[in-house]
Amino acid sequence: QSSVQATGLLDAYVGSMRYAGDAERTSTVGSGGLTTSWFGFKGSEDLGGGLKANFALTGFMRMDTGEAGRFPNDPFFSRDANVGLSGSFGALTLGRGLAPNFLPSVIANPLGDSFTFAPLILHMNVPLFNASHWQATTPSDTGWSNEIIYTTPDFSGLKANLHYQFGEVPGNNSKKNIGVNALYFNGPLTLTAFYEHDQISNPAPTTYFGTTKKDWMLGGAYDFSIVKAYLTYGEAKSDDSPIKAKTTQVGASIPLGGPGKVLASWAQTKLTDVDLKRKTFTLGYDYNLSKRTDVYAMFMNDRITDQDTGNSFGIGMRHSF
Amino acid sequence: QSSVQATGLLDAYVGSMRYAGDAERTSTVGSGGLTTSWFGFKGSEDLGGGLKANFALTGFMRMDTGEAGRFPNDPFFSRDANVGLSGSFGALTLGRGLAPNFLPSVIANPLGDSFTFAPLILHMNVPLFNASHWQATTPSDTGWSNEIIYTTPDFSGLKANLHYQFGEVPGNNSKKNIGVNALYFNGPLTLTAFYEHDQISNPAPTTYFGTTKKDWMLGGAYDFSIVKAYLTYGEAKSDDSPIKAKTTQVGASIPLGGPGKVLASWAQTKLTDVDLKRKTFTLGYDYNLSKRTDVYAMFMNDRITDQDTGNSFGIGMRHSF
Amino acid sequence: QSSVQATGLLDAYVGSMRYAGDAERTSTVGSGGLTTSWFGFKGSEDLGGGLKANFALTGFMRMDTGEAGRFPNDPFFSRDANVGLSGSFGALTLGRGLAPNFLPSVIANPLGDSFTFAPLILHMNVPLFNASHWQATTPSDTGWSNEIIYTTPDFSGLKANLHYQFGEVPGNNSKKNIGVNALYFNGPLTLTAFYEHDQISNPAPTTYFGTTKKDWMLGGAYDFSIVKAYLTYGEAKSDDSPIKAKTTQVGASIPLGGPGKVLASWAQTKLTDVDLKRKTFTLGYDYNLSKRTDVYAMFMNDRITDQDTGNSFGIGMRHSF
Repeated sequence: QSSVQATGLLDAYVGSMRYAGDAERTSTVGSGGLTTSWFGFKGSEDLGGGLKANFALTGFMRMDTGEAGRFPNDPFFSRDANVGLSGSFGALTLGRGLAPNFLPSVIANPLGDSFTFAPLILHMNVPLFNASHWQATTPSDTGWSNEIIYTTPDFSGLKANLHYQFGEVPGNNSKKNIGVNALYFNGPLTLTAFYEHDQISNPAPTTYFGTTKKDWMLGGAYDFSIVKAYLTYGEAKSDDSPIKAKTTQVGASIPLGGPGKVLASWAQTKLTDVDLKRKTFTLGYDYNLSKRTDVYAMFMNDRITDQDTGNSFGIGMRHSF
Repeated sequence: QSSVQATGLLDAYVGSMRYAGDAERTSTVGSGGLTTSWFGFKGSEDLGGGLKANFALTGFMRMDTGEAGRFPNDPFFSRDANVGLSGSFGALTLGRGLAPNFLPSVIANPLGDSFTFAPLILHMNVPLFNASHWQATTPSDTGWSNEIIYTTPDFSGLKANLHYQFGEVPGNNSKKNIGVNALYFNGPLTLTAFYEHDQISNPAPTTYFGTTKKDWMLGGAYDFSIVKAYLTYGEAKSDDSPIKAKTTQVGASIPLGGPGKVLASWAQTKLTDVDLKRKTFTLGYDYNLSKRTDVYAMFMNDRITDQDTGNSFGIGMRHSF
Repeated sequence: QSSVQATGLLDAYVGSMRYAGDAERTSTVGSGGLTTSWFGFKGSEDLGGGLKANFALTGFMRMDTGEAGRFPNDPFFSRDANVGLSGSFGALTLGRGLAPNFLPSVIANPLGDSFTFAPLILHMNVPLFNASHWQATTPSDTGWSNEIIYTTPDFSGLKANLHYQFGEVPGNNSKKNIGVNALYFNGPLTLTAFYEHDQISNPAPTTYFGTTKKDWMLGGAYDFSIVKAYLTYGEAKSDDSPIKAKTTQVGASIPLGGPGKVLASWAQTKLTDVDLKRKTFTLGYDYNLSKRTDVYAMFMNDRITDQDTGNSFGIGMRHSF
């Protein structure tokens, strides 16, 4: 009737990395080649009548240095710190959890939640601290603090999540992040979508932007058996700037008849008004040693208008528990 | 013969909060509406002959942001980091653990260890960073570092704890925190008391105050079945100030015949010499969904002399594992 | 076929501490009298054919204050954050893990990994923030980030580890830490050795020293049954300084016929060119209450040329789970 489990996913790789705009190449042991490493605790309790209490306390961490969080000042439980109830009405979750953009973007590209090699995820979520000054197009991170999430029941494969983050601005309680996403799974077909209307920064400090930022994406995948094809299109814009970021991604996952598959994804982001484009292409191979453990090799080419081109290589290992 | 268990309590609420002295109201997702959220590990080993080795590694955390600790710079294992032996002689505990004030105060008020809504706990332990500049009356937090605790055996319901915190001031080893508490449980009657003589700040840094602060409280409860009544009285004073804080609290817990109960508590703290009073009243309802999960709704009115009055509301959920 | 376990070792003591060069004596509750306290998670998965996936996520912590890490800014998983594969080829480990110096030094002295009372470990690894300005002779900590470790199979009791830490200096990828150690166990005989060639600081930030530091040690022990004798000799030098640190340690562990044993160790470090010596002697008693729990009493005398001599005393308890 009750359960607590320690769980996580650890991903480390050896690589030679150079992103668009990097002046130099860096040899590295890195964390999260394919999935951001995390660990933590989850549990649920059956309350009877279909009602359940659920919790998750999970945090990202860096396998290369042993540091908690994705970056300095990330909260310890950066991935999940929430408690809630679920039942026939769906689910209500309270605390820190996902932002609306996360699941639709990672499901609709073949490299999933790789913040190191997935072109779509890099364009959306990873700023570059180099000459390119690349800004992530996602307005307010992939996880939100001070959040209520309402998840609908599953309607024949369709599920939606409504996300609301309190701005906690004293005396100005209308400031908030709000968003919705939808996921549809039906045999070989996957469809995803999200919309965000964001005014509050994440993860910390959670302060008012001074403006409103809007972000949406449509995505999908179709499994033709010999290849699973992926497609996404999305736009992001801030009310205080004329620049719009338009991101297109196409990808493929090709099973090789055994535990291995080839993964390929190309993403392009155009920034309007400043006439700037980023084009990133990744080609990789992923081999399952078991259901819980795989090894991979990745190559990535990353270009931004007027910046040095970067080529990156990595081989790594992923283990979940 | 041995055991390690992951354990914790997660409490999150949605509220509209305004404490006495707050200029504005804040809508919030908060952590610890009724109990400060925590998680960690506990274990014990039977060493034979009634002797046991015990340990606890537990830390508070904030469910709203996923941050470790109760506040910035709280140690990770802010709640417990101790190891010890227990047997017929009682128990000896070494490391970081409770301060003498904690158990007597949370047992003798109906809202327990709510650092959000329990009037007694707010007056004693939660400073207000607003126009009121309210100072917690407890001299040195509810947990102590560098501590030895001796716990007596249970004498017909009476148990006492002697707490000693090393000041770790090189060459001035007489600086310390020292205190004692007693808890008595006999049928419907509960009695509690503590006394502290404090010279060292907590949790970090643990430095000498430059003075000595004294704090004591007597409390109790009586369960009349239709209502459990609570009463406490305590005083706190620093040797370098003429101001004495005198705190009175009365409370009631009223079972409603099923898994629900009404909770009410009123506390008043008078500061002598400066002619300042704080009066806080909380009325709430707590409903158990199971032994491990409850939901609650709370209303609080909070007044300090010459300050804006605050009314707060919250509904939340608590889940232990 | 899979397993995750919570595991750790908690060590706390009460002591009166004064190291060489300390102006004053400090009464203290301390952490890690005999072993640096740690906790965390380990697991492995059998992948078939003798191949295994392994991981470790463990961090040191301070039982006296509840703080994570050995010191401020130590990464949370300061002890281990690695994942790898093992099989008939040996083992490959990726992430944060041990430095080459650790195992040879702790195996070849009777006080093991005591960063509080083991003379050899104090000279090698614990800087003194007092008038003596003692610098640890180990160039780059006892654990390395951004590391690949290759462990050989066991050849009749002989095992070696090759350690490589990426410097992650963009455009200057030859900067690194590299080292090797060997451990040999055969009946009563133990032999250990390590060599390090270090250019990168640890644990954080991992930056280039601007020079190369070299460090080596040979050690061993022989169990004569009535006494186990220990001996080590090592040298450390930085390319940018003429000073060489030469450290000799002799020790003994004497079983007392039951669960108790006497431990004694003497270490001397000479710094050439500056004509400075440190001599430290520790005598202690360790008593096992069970396989997982022991209590101990330690006395240490610590001298550095021209510095105040320090005598320290401690009694404590160690519990593993």
